[in-house]
Amino acid sequence: MKKILVLHGPNLNILGQREPTVYGFETLAEIDERLRKKGEELSCLVESFQSNSEGALIDALQCAMRDGTAGCVFNPGAYTHYSIALRDAVAAVQFPVIEVHLSNIYARESFRSHSVIAPVAKGQISGFGSLGYELALLALHAQ
Amino acid sequence: MKKILVLHGPNLNILGQREPTVYGFETLAEIDERLRKKGEELSCLVESFQSNSEGALIDALQCAMRDGTAGCVFNPGAYTHYSIALRDAVAAVQFPVIEVHLSNIYARESFRSHSVIAPVAKGQISGFGSLGYELALLALHAQ
Amino acid sequence: MKKILVLHGPNLNILGQREPTVYGFETLAEIDERLRKKGEELSCLVESFQSNSEGALIDALQCAMRDGTAGCVFNPGAYTHYSIALRDAVAAVQFPVIEVHLSNIYARESFRSHSVIAPVAKGQISGFGSLGYELALLALHAQ
Amino acid sequence: MKKILVLHGPNLNILGQREPTVYGFETLAEIDERLRKKGEELSCLVESFQSNSEGALIDALQCAMRDGTAGCVFNPGAYTHYSIALRDAVAAVQFPVIEVHLSNIYARESFRSHSVIAPVAKGQISGFGSLGYELALLALHAQ
Amino acid sequence: MKKILVLHGPNLNILGQREPTVYGFETLAEIDERLRKKGEELSCLVESFQSNSEGALIDALQCAMRDGTAGCVFNPGAYTHYSIALRDAVAAVQFPVIEVHLSNIYARESFRSHSVIAPVAKGQISGFGSLGYELALLALHAQ
Amino acid sequence: MKKILVLHGPNLNILGQREPTVYGFETLAEIDERLRKKGEELSCLVESFQSNSEGALIDALQCAMRDGTAGCVFNPGAYTHYSIALRDAVAAVQFPVIEVHLSNIYARESFRSHSVIAPVAKGQISGFGSLGYELALLALHAQ
Amino acid sequence: MKKILVLHGPNLNILGQREPTVYGFETLAEIDERLRKKGEELSCLVESFQSNSEGALIDALQCAMRDGTAGCVFNPGAYTHYSIALRDAVAAVQFPVIEVHLSNIYARESFRSHSVIAPVAKGQISGFGSLGYELALLALHAQ
Amino acid sequence: MKKILVLHGPNLNILGQREPTVYGFETLAEIDERLRKKGEELSCLVESFQSNSEGALIDALQCAMRDGTAGCVFNPGAYTHYSIALRDAVAAVQFPVIEVHLSNIYARESFRSHSVIAPVAKGQISGFGSLGYELALLALHAQ
Amino acid sequence: MKKILVLHGPNLNILGQREPTVYGFETLAEIDERLRKKGEELSCLVESFQSNSEGALIDALQCAMRDGTAGCVFNPGAYTHYSIALRDAVAAVQFPVIEVHLSNIYARESFRSHSVIAPVAKGQISGFGSLGYELALLALHAQ
Amino acid sequence: MKKILVLHGPNLNILGQREPTVYGFETLAEIDERLRKKGEELSCLVESFQSNSEGALIDALQCAMRDGTAGCVFNPGAYTHYSIALRDAVAAVQFPVIEVHLSNIYARESFRSHSVIAPVAKGQISGFGSLGYELALLALHAQ
Amino acid sequence: MKKILVLHGPNLNILGQREPTVYGFETLAEIDERLRKKGEELSCLVESFQSNSEGALIDALQCAMRDGTAGCVFNPGAYTHYSIALRDAVAAVQFPVIEVHLSNIYARESFRSHSVIAPVAKGQISGFGSLGYELALLALHAQ
Amino acid sequence: MKKILVLHGPNLNILGQREPTVYGFETLAEIDERLRKKGEELSCLVESFQSNSEGALIDALQCAMRDGTAGCVFNPGAYTHYSIALRDAVAAVQFPVIEVHLSNIYARESFRSHSVIAPVAKGQISGFGSLGYELALLALHAQ
Repeated sequence: MKKILVLHGPNLNILGQREPTVYGFETLAEIDERLRKKGEELSCLVESFQSNSEGALIDALQCAMRDGTAGCVFNPGAYTHYSIALRDAVAAVQFPVIEVHLSNIYARESFRSHSVIAPVAKGQISGFGSLGYELALLALHAQ
Repeated sequence: MKKILVLHGPNLNILGQREPTVYGFETLAEIDERLRKKGEELSCLVESFQSNSEGALIDALQCAMRDGTAGCVFNPGAYTHYSIALRDAVAAVQFPVIEVHLSNIYARESFRSHSVIAPVAKGQISGFGSLGYELALLALHAQ
Repeated sequence: MKKILVLHGPNLNILGQREPTVYGFETLAEIDERLRKKGEELSCLVESFQSNSEGALIDALQCAMRDGTAGCVFNPGAYTHYSIALRDAVAAVQFPVIEVHLSNIYARESFRSHSVIAPVAKGQISGFGSLGYELALLALHAQ
Repeated sequence: MKKILVLHGPNLNILGQREPTVYGFETLAEIDERLRKKGEELSCLVESFQSNSEGALIDALQCAMRDGTAGCVFNPGAYTHYSIALRDAVAAVQFPVIEVHLSNIYARESFRSHSVIAPVAKGQISGFGSLGYELALLALHAQ
Repeated sequence: MKKILVLHGPNLNILGQREPTVYGFETLAEIDERLRKKGEELSCLVESFQSNSEGALIDALQCAMRDGTAGCVFNPGAYTHYSIALRDAVAAVQFPVIEVHLSNIYARESFRSHSVIAPVAKGQISGFGSLGYELALLALHAQ
Repeated sequence: MKKILVLHGPNLNILGQREPTVYGFETLAEIDERLRKKGEELSCLVESFQSNSEGALIDALQCAMRDGTAGCVFNPGAYTHYSIALRDAVAAVQFPVIEVHLSNIYARESFRSHSVIAPVAKGQISGFGSLGYELALLALHAQ
Repeated sequence: MKKILVLHGPNLNILGQREPTVYGFETLAEIDERLRKKGEELSCLVESFQSNSEGALIDALQCAMRDGTAGCVFNPGAYTHYSIALRDAVAAVQFPVIEVHLSNIYARESFRSHSVIAPVAKGQISGFGSLGYELALLALHAQ
Repeated sequence: MKKILVLHGPNLNILGQREPTVYGFETLAEIDERLRKKGEELSCLVESFQSNSEGALIDALQCAMRDGTAGCVFNPGAYTHYSIALRDAVAAVQFPVIEVHLSNIYARESFRSHSVIAPVAKGQISGFGSLGYELALLALHAQ
Repeated sequence: MKKILVLHGPNLNILGQREPTVYGFETLAEIDERLRKKGEELSCLVESFQSNSEGALIDALQCAMRDGTAGCVFNPGAYTHYSIALRDAVAAVQFPVIEVHLSNIYARESFRSHSVIAPVAKGQISGFGSLGYELALLALHAQ
Repeated sequence: MKKILVLHGPNLNILGQREPTVYGFETLAEIDERLRKKGEELSCLVESFQSNSEGALIDALQCAMRDGTAGCVFNPGAYTHYSIALRDAVAAVQFPVIEVHLSNIYARESFRSHSVIAPVAKGQISGFGSLGYELALLALHAQ
Repeated sequence: MKKILVLHGPNLNILGQREPTVYGFETLAEIDERLRKKGEELSCLVESFQSNSEGALIDALQCAMRDGTAGCVFNPGAYTHYSIALRDAVAAVQFPVIEVHLSNIYARESFRSHSVIAPVAKGQISGFGSLGYELALLALHAQ
Repeated sequence: MKKILVLHGPNLNILGQREPTVYGFETLAEIDERLRKKGEELSCLVESFQSNSEGALIDALQCAMRDGTAGCVFNPGAYTHYSIALRDAVAAVQFPVIEVHLSNIYARESFRSHSVIAPVAKGQISGFGSLGYELALLALHAQ
């Protein structure tokens, strides 16, 4: 079974509570459970991890380099816009990483329309709420 | 049956001939046929249109406002980066428009990383080759 | 009788349907009819043309160079902000061209506050809805 | 009778003397008299005020808030480009303010093409010489 | 008794009338009276002055240099963003000047987030409505 | 009793040792103790937390969302200038957050004059040394 | 015989009428005839095409990809400065494209000194009037 | 006798008190007296005027247009950097205006190195303390 | 014996695996061992620490303030480009800190050519691979 | 016979050795000899000069002002991008100067796409290798 | 006798020939002779030097450090705008250097309004033609 | 024996005299002698050259291409910041060039933090005074 890491960045642990008109009412646990099931349908083992810490997210990506992970669905949250350290980690791993955003980052404050991660990601999906994670799973599966 | 417009911008008619290492070897006709079939599976009527002319693309979007179109998958090609006229047309139609790019526009020349369309699109999918169109179809279907 | 060209740029053909809180509920046909009548009062022959195509708008301006047109009321729509080709056409014609905008373009997105046409127009009128066209007619008539 | 304030900013008191190829040979007194008469035709009471002082122009706008003024035609002169204090005063009054410029400010030095007043004005008219004031009167009257 | 100058810049005289959702319903007279009383509690003589004129505000600061003023609470209003002349006056006086803004200037239009006064002020307090003046009084008193 | 969180960002734990001409000789423990007492006077329960880690500061804010905290006094230290992740956390909590800086950040290197936190804070107080924390407590108490 | 496409962009059809002090008194027909003859001398078949439409110019370039064209002399007119769609078409064709400008584009308005086409052209010749087309023919012939 | 206006902008009335290490210990009265005497030597009538008000400075320049003034020595103080209204007044007067600065404005904060007055002045002298006024007198006299 | 801290930032723990054409094939353990030996030759006690976490790196620098460390060789990795928090920590310690980069950061993406750490470091060495660490040791030893 | 100066800027003396994939394998002596012969065919006396020194290149241009030179073909090398002193010399000579670049300067590093010489040159030819010099000769001859 | 160096930068040797409407008809020899005589009146030994070479101008300044020169009048010509090497030489000499420009550099192309020399000069005089050199002599003499 | 060129740019010949608090009290002759001896220890023949002239520095680099030089230690002085001609020379030579700066160029004026040479150098060492040259020798020796 293909191993897929779903990685969530800062403040995504409070999904459902934080600005629900922007981010929706679903909790992260519900999303992760749905992705796990969707993974099963595609014969993929989906594991999720969330952290508010830039360092812990880098650790998680590096860890996946060593445990046979075949691809990663990554929502870097606000780190999208400035974490060159995360960018370097994404560039360093051998498996494809797909950048996902719940909201349409191009329809919000101007500083949110620049991603330092995107140039080293396989591709980017933004604006579809939690459906974006599923589309990313499909894309990883199709490779 | 839900009616979906697939709209292709400038130079996409020469797919397969143009810089295939960037855009792949598939022709646009092959992609459109695949999308038509994928549409059938989802009980959607998928119709495709390509033009090199900004005005003709605007005409096509306006036309879809009047014929019951339920959604649009739009690859604006190079117009992505400057056609405010197309942006206004996308903002004017009542149905959701999903912006798709074959290549990862964030991993190329810096002027390609800015989309004037994105702020008024439903969402954006880039970097997955022609698979991106299928993901967009799925997203329209899921609404 | 003085011949006046009223030229409408992209997306103005869907006036009344498109974001009516910004652009009003009047259709373009209604506006053009009103201008034709207003023209008659001023002993001017008012002819209107709309296109979504940059090239067709340039063609229309060049055509007016040759048919005795005495002035032009021009709403370049979104082309206002980037069409240097239209600017060159406006600079090339011998008759005065007045730039008109329905909405106050300075009270909207920042990219709308820059006009590449304005430096070669006779003057600019913005923010008065369709009344702006009538004020422009009066200005042309007063010359 | 509707009360209209015509407000002139710095250096407009020396109209007729200052760079007449740019601003024309008419004096401000002549313009104000013509506007007063034009106002009478429209059953409007037109009162004019000029000052070189930013503070006095703000005072005049605030004063008009309290004396039943129904609209204002405002040529902010050079304050157009930097007086955020005047902008705030324009935003504070309840009646519509129309920004007028004698010359086409978009055809001159680049710093003249930015107006800090325009985003809070009802609309803007530029490039028609003193005729611009009359067009603004008509626009206020038409409301 | 310590003498404190409370200085109010342009458009603050119409507090209570101007955009009350941003600036509140209190009038400037009410605020000044409250500050005078608060001053008495702290054994300070609080005197207030407002002007719409940049020059008059500079005059007031220079005047305070000569009359034993021990500190100043200054809301420069819109002059905050461009009056280098006021900045020079603040830098010239020997007593501390505290910059106060009623609204959170960092949560509004981007041009409001830059203060030319702040680098020469003792400190800055913004976003607390008229309470900000009292906090500034306390800070001056605590020195 | 109202619960108030006092949150200190990176390098504030070495207050008293670090550039004392800029930041003063007081230690953070002394400041926190003073705030705790001041809180008692105002019938508030003041709890302090410091971390050099962006993630830990986000965790602390999120934690306060769930434990009945009524307001937060936050000195984000250097994270002020780039931590959009902290900004998102501040925007996510329901209670007011007041941004405090010991030094006048507008009188130092130019990169220190931009705060990414300020637009989502209730207000900002800078330049008063540790007195700024007390003023912020008063402001939270006054609400 | 080598087939050469001479492609003229917007407003070049009115050469001789438009700002003759900048662009000269020759008509496009005269220039094209001269180039045809010059081509004959060099055993080249020179065919010319002009359009005001961005889309039609892209169509012409794509068309030349399929008809054995060996090189192109291209004056993109005002599209030089913003048409990334034309740039993509130039990059897509296999034959060399030489960018020609009648006037010295570096001695005019600053926006004219930037070409989005130049990075993908074989070379650029500007400032020599219609002689520039001949120099470009020679350069294509010399390859 | 040639009439020369010496015009001093904001905060120059407190010369001798304000940052004497930058501006020197001389008072403005002493400087003006010295210039009056120097003028006598050159058979010039030197009259001085100072104001903190932008409007009053414009009034003074306009007034000099009508009283036979032959030249002006102008230290615009902080208005140097933003008063386009003063620039317009300088451009409007027929006599030469020489811009003088006591300090070397290019050796101070970067915002002080830009003068909006300089492009319309006859020339500029900066960095020589009050000697600069005398050099300017000599330059006016030499014309 | 002089105590030297060698501090490695994010992603340096995967040296040898990550883009070896840029960073070389040596592992961090090998480099640290070599530095330890080199230190012995120079009678210095060299201790190394790596972390992906910005906070942990700040903690390490603060810790070294208290344990008699005489100097630090610091490769901040990607934090070089944005961690003002690390910059503040470097500025806060009393011992010299030398910034080292394995690759020539000026020959890579433009965002890598700006270091927020450099202005507060003793000096910078970049482009010599792991030899750079040794040169930095020599520089600390030579002081 | 018409006298033509061919002027080569810095590093052109090592043509053939320096990055031959960019600049070709021909030496400067070979190019100069070819131009001399080409000149003979056109009845022009072609003289070449190369220097790495900005001052010597200015001297050469000034010298040509006095010796009857009728035109100049100038490859300013890297001085193209910053030597305003050379620009002034080009502007000062009465004969036409044509700027030539071997490589397409618009297809290289972004700093190479800006020429300070171009606005005062007769025209510019870039991207044709040493053929560019011959085209420039032809252009000078055709005048 | 005080020794004064008058230093002229590039293209000043062709004064009288170069753009006389900008720079006047006087030759440099005439100016230098006049300055020598003016120097005698002031009991100063005035020596002049001109070079088109940046290096030679630096040599001349360094040389003056060693030969008892008491001050320098320096017209850096075009080097004004970019020669940081000359700036460093001006900063290195112990005697005052006064920057002089014949034309008003603020009334010309925008790139001419920035001087890299000015921040380290004693003062700057521009716009008075060759009279500017005399004013500078007077200023050096007055010290 | 390996031949090493030590190349010093403008104003380095006056080391010891120029701003000694920034650059130290050592003379260039002393530094060069020390480097010669250090070279001997490493069996390298170290030859030094200094010039204030950009052209002469380029000549020296080109000369070293032909005389078997194995590496170069280059302090380009102020040319660091703008001499693209020197950059091209550095890129043209086959041997490694190491850029050295005595002072920490990142801790000074902002224009000093940009090097046009660095992207084509082997590496950069800055901030260690004359020790930097020795570190560079070691680095060349270690290759």
